[in-house]
Amino acid sequence: MLVPNVSAGLPQPDLARLEQLKELSRRLEFRFRDYRLYDLALTHSSYSNEPGSHRMNNQRLEYFGDSIIGFIVNEHLFLDYKLSEGQMARIKSAAVSEKSLASAARALRFGAYLRMSKGERKSGGSRRPSNLADAFEAFVAAIYIDRGMKQARQFVVGMLDSRLRNLSQSGRALDPKSALQELVQKQFRTHPVYELVSQEGPDHKREFVYRVVIDSREIARGMGSSRKRAERQAAIRALDLLRE
Amino acid sequence: MLVPNVSAGLPQPDLARLEQLKELSRRLEFRFRDYRLYDLALTHSSYSNEPGSHRMNNQRLEYFGDSIIGFIVNEHLFLDYKLSEGQMARIKSAAVSEKSLASAARALRFGAYLRMSKGERKSGGSRRPSNLADAFEAFVAAIYIDRGMKQARQFVVGMLDSRLRNLSQSGRALDPKSALQELVQKQFRTHPVYELVSQEGPDHKREFVYRVVIDSREIARGMGSSRKRAERQAAIRALDLLRE
Repeated sequence: MLVPNVSAGLPQPDLARLEQLKELSRRLEFRFRDYRLYDLALTHSSYSNEPGSHRMNNQRLEYFGDSIIGFIVNEHLFLDYKLSEGQMARIKSAAVSEKSLASAARALRFGAYLRMSKGERKSGGSRRPSNLADAFEAFVAAIYIDRGMKQARQFVVGMLDSRLRNLSQSGRALDPKSALQELVQKQFRTHPVYELVSQEGPDHKREFVYRVVIDSREIARGMGSSRKRAERQAAIRALDLLRE
Repeated sequence: MLVPNVSAGLPQPDLARLEQLKELSRRLEFRFRDYRLYDLALTHSSYSNEPGSHRMNNQRLEYFGDSIIGFIVNEHLFLDYKLSEGQMARIKSAAVSEKSLASAARALRFGAYLRMSKGERKSGGSRRPSNLADAFEAFVAAIYIDRGMKQARQFVVGMLDSRLRNLSQSGRALDPKSALQELVQKQFRTHPVYELVSQEGPDHKREFVYRVVIDSREIARGMGSSRKRAERQAAIRALDLLRE
């Protein structure tokens, strides 16, 4: 896309910030064309209130980046592995979790580049997983806007590849409901039961909530536009919890 | 991407089916390179059990297509409108809802091309919104694999553009929580209240469920990895329900 108007309203980073971003670019061995985009991607929402800030933060980029990463990871799974849709959903959910993306951001040392308010920094904001994951998502959007999908894909797959590989080789590669069935059988000698909690909305726009129950104890809930999707989400969450 | 191995295992459609797909291609004024992909996209999961079927259906394509559409719609919103991330989330959610995608599929008369079991067809399967929306998602994945992102983008934006335009011009363009606040004020002369229903999981992988309450009555629930996301989802659902 490389549309100029995205960064049209953004000020140029000052010299100290520019030096910092140049250092990052060198370290990543990745050329930034428009530094303003990466500057914005590494600006936490709390910074907008600091004096001298340009009142812009990484929240829009983060929102867009989330769907770029989802697309890239699903493309990768769709092509590289003979996985069912349920398996893809499960691996993708783990690969793009806050934990996973924060860990990628930590590997890139994004905490040191993230601008935020003094209050946010003092309370540990530069190590907070949600801030790190958001910065990673926003950074991917910056790459896509600045350099295009090919570069964004290379970056995302490069950062998440070993995780994706592990996920699809481990038991996680099983369909979530089958995997949960297997684990519960082994660990508790019983079966997981799926129960409808609620359905809201008219026929054509129904939202289901299902819970998965083991030995009369609720383990997790899932929500979705069909019974299948809600149960799948509940199974994914139950697996995450039981595996902690 | 245009990777050959996606369709490598797929049989060629028989002559009657090929004629039908050629007719569709002419009507859409869109050239299919590999007919097998479009054949698969228009094959419901029930068809796999019919004698003579190739035991493959559109579920993997549907899963992948969902994230392609999400990416394209978010890119469109990110670029074309000065929308906050909350506004983008709300418009996107409405634009890619089952209702919206089923309506796009109906406009393309996909019901007539959708292969399914006799049982599924008899019970109204070719008009079922979930089947139509799934076919639309799978068809977008087929276009992307067959012809690339540029063509997929053109197709999706072409089909959803007027809907996206309406959504961002109407009140829906407001941030969901603000829009709900406004509507509840006007309609009920009170405020929506957000209440935590549950939080599950360890610190780094927490899932929040929030509900929105009006006059002590629960209207809808939302789920997400942060309070913000869960409340936003609850507000989007409440708006949909109150506007029915």
